[in-house]
Parts: sequence; structure tokens; C-alpha cells
Amino acid sequence: MPITSILDIYTKKKYLNKEITINGWIRSKRTSKIGISFLTITDGSSINTIQVIAKKSLYNYVTEIIKLTTGCSVIISGVLVLSPGNLQIYEIQSNKIKVIGWIKNPEKYPISAKKHTIEHLRKFCHLRPRTNLISAISRIRNIVFQSLNLFLFNKQYLWVSTPIITSLDTEGSSSMFKVSMLDNNNQYTNNNNKKFFKKDVFLTVSGQLTLEAYACALSKVYSLGPIFRAENSNTKKHLTEFWMLEVEKAFSNINDISKFAEKLLKFSISYVLDNCISDLIFLQKKLNRNIISYLNDFLYKDFINIEYSEVINILQKNKNSSYENINWGEDLSSSHEKYLVHKYFKSTVIVRNYPRLLKAFYMRMNSDNKTVAAFDILVPNIGEIIGGSEREDRIMYLEKNMNKVGLNSKNYSWYKDLRKYGTIPHSGFGLGLERLIIFITGIKNIRESIPFPRTIRHADF
Amino acid sequence: MPITSILDIYTKKKYLNKEITINGWIRSKRTSKIGISFLTITDGSSINTIQVIAKKSLYNYVTEIIKLTTGCSVIISGVLVLSPGNLQIYEIQSNKIKVIGWIKNPEKYPISAKKHTIEHLRKFCHLRPRTNLISAISRIRNIVFQSLNLFLFNKQYLWVSTPIITSLDTEGSSSMFKVSMLDNNNQYTNNNNKKFFKKDVFLTVSGQLTLEAYACALSKVYSLGPIFRAENSNTKKHLTEFWMLEVEKAFSNINDISKFAEKLLKFSISYVLDNCISDLIFLQKKLNRNIISYLNDFLYKDFINIEYSEVINILQKNKNSSYENINWGEDLSSSHEKYLVHKYFKSTVIVRNYPRLLKAFYMRMNSDNKTVAAFDILVPNIGEIIGGSEREDRIMYLEKNMNKVGLNSKNYSWYKDLRKYGTIPHSGFGLGLERLIIFITGIKNIRESIPFPRTIRHADF
Repeated sequence: MPITSILDIYTKKKYLNKEITINGWIRSKRTSKIGISFLTITDGSSINTIQVIAKKSLYNYVTEIIKLTTGCSVIISGVLVLSPGNLQIYEIQSNKIKVIGWIKNPEKYPISAKKHTIEHLRKFCHLRPRTNLISAISRIRNIVFQSLNLFLFNKQYLWVSTPIITSLDTEGSSSMFKVSMLDNNNQYTNNNNKKFFKKDVFLTVSGQLTLEAYACALSKVYSLGPIFRAENSNTKKHLTEFWMLEVEKAFSNINDISKFAEKLLKFSISYVLDNCISDLIFLQKKLNRNIISYLNDFLYKDFINIEYSEVINILQKNKNSSYENINWGEDLSSSHEKYLVHKYFKSTVIVRNYPRLLKAFYMRMNSDNKTVAAFDILVPNIGEIIGGSEREDRIMYLEKNMNKVGLNSKNYSWYKDLRKYGTIPHSGFGLGLERLIIFITGIKNIRESIPFPRTIRHADF
Repeated sequence: MPITSILDIYTKKKYLNKEITINGWIRSKRTSKIGISFLTITDGSSINTIQVIAKKSLYNYVTEIIKLTTGCSVIISGVLVLSPGNLQIYEIQSNKIKVIGWIKNPEKYPISAKKHTIEHLRKFCHLRPRTNLISAISRIRNIVFQSLNLFLFNKQYLWVSTPIITSLDTEGSSSMFKVSMLDNNNQYTNNNNKKFFKKDVFLTVSGQLTLEAYACALSKVYSLGPIFRAENSNTKKHLTEFWMLEVEKAFSNINDISKFAEKLLKFSISYVLDNCISDLIFLQKKLNRNIISYLNDFLYKDFINIEYSEVINILQKNKNSSYENINWGEDLSSSHEKYLVHKYFKSTVIVRNYPRLLKAFYMRMNSDNKTVAAFDILVPNIGEIIGGSEREDRIMYLEKNMNKVGLNSKNYSWYKDLRKYGTIPHSGFGLGLERLIIFITGIKNIRESIPFPRTIRHADF
């Protein structure tokens, strides 16, 4: 008999009063005095569970049902009916329950029916998707991923995979992981490594430079893959391995690309609202936040566009104790961002045209010779969620910048070729997938936004 | 004025006899004796180019047009009309041509209008997407990626990202890259590394084990990301960094999952036929292969399902010089696969139930106690394109296998938990994205299937 997912039970109307078979895991069980058992089943397809009524008289399995505990896996057949109770819409009047897998030592099951802290669950990343919290986040994460691909596909952007193993340091930082070969004794040797790639190689911190090469040929491209930062930051906001969307468009400028980034963010949020409303309602209750209203708010308000220089004026004029003093040329701290987004504008803000020295070598110098055509999108509660810029398309400026930051020009001669041969104005941006998920779900720690988080001192599983 | 892509010119009918603006690069130029220039423009959105007519009398730009060479970037406005010539459907009667970027030293441009070998282009991975061949492959690669996400999304599979940095060795090989921290002098030190993750870590060879944890909670999941093999193989078939789709389904067996893999492959191919027919026609001419007819063939034939043991019988009975002798227990070589697929069955073949010793520790032992419920899908010209199996869901068998291959049981206790707590029959498979692209496009070397190939001695760009 074909299996019906719990998602289908709730979203397709055709199963009512029909015999169906489901499979999944016991979420909870109670048994009435007259020998009727009520099982709550989850299969991960939805935040919704389905109640199963198991009458003693119907079974050869009475002893088995008595032994069932949270987490046991089962296959159940029965008729789907409207539930007379007011806690659920549907229930299954079962006529067959097959136990597939038991829980060894139920009292030791790390995610038993009782409440667990997020920190406890983090130790059991392999089991935590069985909880409502992590399964809801996982379904939202999936929809975010699908929404980005769908939006970009519809806009004729081509997905391009940029390399992970690289000799480049796009962000000019030294926070990179080194990749090396092992010798036969599983030992690292410099010699071995040299033989393999003929050079030192690292894990990429951004695919942008190689993505630019494709934008300079195919016009509209994006990449979506893992990115690595070997930063010694043990905070709620940092992962050493995370997923990044990078978008690059030929013949574009800061106006086009920042508007496009706004549309993309809004599409993604509206797609999540359309596809994950049950999960959002669950998170809203669980985390006690008005998630749905703030996402709707986000959708229907235009982002504020403002110059970096104007931001400095605002911060200097409205000086108050919630943030430190700031001068032109200095970077915005999170307290400045909070003031702008939450207090001053009460809106998502796009800050544009930052001082040259604050931004990366590849960003395009403006005609004032002091600022570059960069932009950051600052959203409530998160801060920067997108960073982008026009790319320096003039070889002279580019070479000057590269010399200044001390990049090895030899490694980048191919990048300069893009400016020597049919150069074009082009722009792009990067979006951290996990930051977007934090923004949507309202979770506090980025470690809950990705299945198996890698942070300093943690590469378990 | 908004920009019209060349793809839209050819697929939407609304632009005919309208003023449009395009941007892109000069593919070629010729000038007639009476001073009319014919420019062929590409923008990467399509294999099709558009011819632009530039009449001397209309321009202030005569001197510029004379200097234009292949690769120069331009923005052109004019009226789209039906072309009187029989080499193209449309042309643009231009009234404005703006040159954006020149080619420095056209005679040195690495991908000038003349023919180049594939090996030459490989040295210029940053410029080769400007060629018809690599741009066609890139567009097909994009559609393959989109098709996999679309198919799995429609089947209610959730995309899950599995970690890249790992301490696991899923395939039991030693072909892994080590990941380490740098100290302040950019030097590798064992000490530093130990501090960062508290253990030795590597680049993943497969996300399957962690994906199983999610299947054992969310039922239907997949991952799609980069995978690394530090193999010393300098062949047309090997990359050290490539993209892999991994699919994992709860409550499933080898029959379900191999049928599902067949459907997925066929959906992907039909989606490419629907979306990339112009690129396929180009490749068909360029590579002199009947790509479109063999893809259609692939779609409309059922795959042959056959036992490994039966394959051995066939190979022993039909002994001939095209392949080596083979005994039960030995692995199929590419010559055996070729005989089966091209000669004996003339079809795609799913070989099932391989000897235990040929396959990985996580595959489920069959009741014969000799074979495991594994399957490989062998397609024409490529050989294995998908490998999958039922996973060993019985803790006793699993532990035995892990001991046999010498895995460090401590690292895998979480994996065993999946069998201790509500274990379920589950199955999955892996599909190499680049192999699928080779199969579809008919290209000979895997280095053309990915933008910036990483192979032994090559980590350029």
C-alpha cells in the first residue's frame, strides 16, 4: 500500500474517510482506562502530527502497543476520520500497527518526550531534527534554498559552481583553512602537498572573483555553496563553515543590483510565508515573537536607501548613550546599526558608498575618489544580511588597490584579464544563508540554523 | 532603457519591429565594401547570437566600429527586424552603438575568433565561458542543477546541507584532504590545529552518514554540494573536487529507491531537452554525436534490472576478447560494463546485490549472507552514474562491518544511535553531477563539465 505523508493528509483533501497507511515515529502516547491508546505520530514532512486511535480489541499487538515509547518507528494503517476531539482536526482509526524499531533504554533516549534545552540538543545534532524546533527550522531552510534558486532561475540567472579549494584570498584576510595531502602514514608533509597541487591551497572565503569571470561571459550568474572562515570567534553569530549565495550581473551598477537584492530577499520571505506557515506559527508560539507580523512588515515596506556619509551625520546629530561616537571613515558597529534600523528608520536600511579603506580591493572607486560603490543591507535584529558592490572594472584602479593590500599580482593576472579584454561595469552581492534563516525564524544562535554546525572547537559528526 | 536578453529575443515574440537595447560582446565582425558593418553579438543567455547592422551614415562612431574586434563589450540600441539573409532569423538595425570595453592587443587575446583546442581553452578557464562550447555546457549544467532541485522539491524531499569539514571517512578510503589552521606566520602547526577543532579534520568524501540522520527524522531528504577525493588519478574521468547529489529516504528498500533514481535521471534529461534544445543542437554538430536521439532513447526505454550474480553468468557464458575473465566476487571493470550496456542489453542497466566485500560498510546484508542490497546504474558511454543501497539498519551487522574495515567506533557512536533509537529501513543513492553532464553533453573530458576544475597538479584561479 502506498504511504501517505502527514503533509499530504493536511494539505490534500482526498484522504478523508479513506483507508491510508502512514509511517513515522511515536511523538507521544497515552492510554485510557478502557484500553484505548492514543498515539501521536510524526514523519517530519510537517510540523503537524496525526493522532492514531488504537483499540485493544482490534489487535494482536496489545503487548507491543503497551511497550511503545517516544521515538519508536511504526507503520500504521487505518481510516482517516475527522477527530471528535478539539485538539486535532483528523485522526486515524487504526486497524494495523507494525512496530519497526524500538528505543533501547527509553530512559536514556537523549531526546525523550520531556523538555530539553537548546544546548542539550546541540550535543545530539544527529537526533535533534526529530524535535519540533529543529524540524521546523529544517523545513524553512529547505524553502529558503528553493526560493533563491527559483527566483534566480526565473530571472534567467545561471547557477555556476565556484571552486572550494583555492589559492586566492578574496577578502584579503588571513582567516583561511589550509588544505593539504596526507602521506601514507596519514601525516601531513609539506613535500607531499607540493606534489599534489604544486602550490599552497586553502578553503575559499568567497567565490566572487571566479563568479565575476562567468558574469563577464554569461551576463547573469550566481553561486550557492559552502564558504569557510577560520576565525577565532566563539559567538552566536559565527560559523566557520556556512552557506553563501553570491550573485553577479554584467552591465549593472549599485542601483540595479541593490534593488535586485531587495526583490530577492522579499521573494524569499514571501515564499517562506506561502510554504511554511504552520512552521512559522509553531516558532511564533515557541519563541514568543511576532514572527509572522514582522515578516509581513518586511515585505510591504520599501527599504530605506541612504549614503554612508549621511548615516554618519545622523549618528553625530542624534548622539545618545545607546552607541559610541563615530567619525567619517569609521565602520558602523552593531550598536550603530541597531540605532539606525530599530530607532531612527524603523525599517530595513541599505547603506551605500562606504569609505575606500573600509572595503575590499575589488570594489569600484566613486568619482569623489574617497568612497566606493558598495552597499550593505541592514535588517532588524540581525544587522548586515547582504553586502555588495560595483566591481572595479578599470585596470589602473584595480592594480593600485591590489598593490595597496599586498596581493600577489601573479595569482590575480587572470582576474585582471577580465578588465583587459572587453571589460564591463558589473556588480554583485553575497547573502549568508544562515543569517537569513535566523532573521526568518527568530532563533537566537546561528548553531540552530544549520544541521551540523562547525565552530571553533566543534567539528563533531 | 531596459535591456533585452538574446534569449528573450528568440523565445518571446513581442520584440519584433520594436526598438530594443541589448548588451554583450562582439563575437565577429565583417564590413561590406559599401560601408555597412555586420556585428554578431552574444550575451551568454543563449547559444544564439544576434546580427547587428551598422550603417556608416548613421553614426558618429565610424572610427570606433572599424576598430571593434572579437571580445569587445558593447551596448546597442536599434529596431529588431526579420533578417532578409538566410543565416539568421532576426537582426537589429542599429541606431546607437556604445563601446564599453576594448580588447588590449587583439592579436594576443587568448580566445580570439580563430579555432582553439579544448586543451588551450582549459588554460583560460576564466575566459572560456565566452566560447560557444563552454557557454553551452554551462547553461546545461545550470538546468541539470535546477532539474534536480525541482524534481526533489515536487516529491517533498527536503534539501539538507551536510558538513564539508569532517572527521569521518565514509567510504573507508584514505583519499582525503586534511584541513588545518595556519599560525600567525601562515605556517601549518600541529599545535594550532589541535587548538581549533580539538581533532584532526578532513574534507568530506560523502555527506551520506549525516544525511541518514536527517532521513531518520524528516523521512525524505537530499544534499547537493561539493565532495573531495584526494586521489592521484590524472584521467579524463576524475576530479578532486566535484558536485554530488545524495538522496536518502526513510522506510524504503532497494526496489523503491532504484526506481526513484531512474525517474530522477529521466526527469533531469527531459528537463534539459525542454530547456536547452538549442545548446544540444549546437553540441550535436560540434561534437558530431547524435546527442538528441540518444537522450530520447534513454527517456523512453525502461532500465534493465539485473542481479550481480546473473551478470557474472552472462559474462562467463559470452566470453569474448572485449573483456577480461571475471569470477563471482570480483568487481566489474569498465570493459565488462561496456559489454553489458552497449552489446548485451543495449540499454541502461541497474546491477543489484553485489558481493559484501566489494561494497561499503554501511550497506545492508541480504538474507543470503553473501551479498548486500546495493545497486549501480550503468549508462552508455559513462558507466556508473549512480550508486546506492539499502543501509544496514541492524546494529549487530553494522558493528560487525565497522570492526572489519577498522573504523574507529568512537567516532561513529552517533551513527549507531540511529539504529538504537527507532531504527528504520532506509535507502539512498549518490549521483555525480559532472558525470551526468558528460553523459548529456557528450564531452570527452570531465574538466569541461565544471567551471574551474581541480585535479592533481591543478588548482588554478
